[in-house]
Amino acid sequence: MDFTIRAASVEDCKDIARMILELSEYEKLGNIAKVTQKDLEQDGFSKNPFFHGIIAEVPEQHRTQEGHTKIGYALYFYSYSSCLGRSIYMEDLYVMPEFRGKGIGKALMSKVAQLGLAAGCHQLNFTVLDWNKSSLDFYFSHGCNDVTANMGYHYMSCHGEALERLAQP
Amino acid sequence: MDFTIRAASVEDCKDIARMILELSEYEKLGNIAKVTQKDLEQDGFSKNPFFHGIIAEVPEQHRTQEGHTKIGYALYFYSYSSCLGRSIYMEDLYVMPEFRGKGIGKALMSKVAQLGLAAGCHQLNFTVLDWNKSSLDFYFSHGCNDVTANMGYHYMSCHGEALERLAQP
Repeated sequence: MDFTIRAASVEDCKDIARMILELSEYEKLGNIAKVTQKDLEQDGFSKNPFFHGIIAEVPEQHRTQEGHTKIGYALYFYSYSSCLGRSIYMEDLYVMPEFRGKGIGKALMSKVAQLGLAAGCHQLNFTVLDWNKSSLDFYFSHGCNDVTANMGYHYMSCHGEALERLAQP
Repeated sequence: MDFTIRAASVEDCKDIARMILELSEYEKLGNIAKVTQKDLEQDGFSKNPFFHGIIAEVPEQHRTQEGHTKIGYALYFYSYSSCLGRSIYMEDLYVMPEFRGKGIGKALMSKVAQLGLAAGCHQLNFTVLDWNKSSLDFYFSHGCNDVTANMGYHYMSCHGEALERLAQP
């Protein structure tokens, strides 16, 4: 099937917000707050954006029953490691279920890797849920390393009231 | 003990590189490539920096035997979550051993939280090694959540030849 991978623009935020919700349902994370179309427009497409995005698109004749032609996305931002230096982080990699198995996920991830290498990055990082065996298999098949399993790194978060308290001098 | 927390400048890169090596020895990661002073100067203090830094400094009268007054640091960069939106990521939090237990680590982390909140971030993320109980206790005491243990997120990496292969179309 033909598909194209291209940089996301502000006009894609409605579809990205839709697919973020689809992904969170797939990941069974339905009860966690999700960013809105407006958040994405403000945070990704103003000065000093917090992220960048790429979109997978199919021709009109392959659109979904609901009329969607934007059927996959990845978000990414540049990051840093005191071990490996310049890095790129992939936040979300998603392809709509009926378009899986056609190389679109690989093409999206490959594009993030290309963008990282072009910016001088030495590593691509992301997180994956441990029960998501099909995603883990996909990542392992592309040479990714489970840093949590192999080196003991745990991913930590501080948010909400805890973050407010932490910020108190 | 008096100490100050301030933004890092390019003149601090020598001390940051020294403390990155100290931290990697503490974390028993001695065999992994480490960024150099020159890397830090280029990657953190040119246009579109990959990270920002803060430094903990003590007065001359408290300098170490080797003459160091810059005795702690944290690196951070802005990131993004499709659940919680604008986020800040803390890469490394380090205080030299003889200056621990004086609130300097808390002050550094608190400053990162303040910078995040000021930029509209909803969450602070970082990684910690699972055997590092004293760090984990410190983070838990400040309301941080072990996302790996509690939600099953694994931190993944692709680098070196695997990253080059992934980038092939």
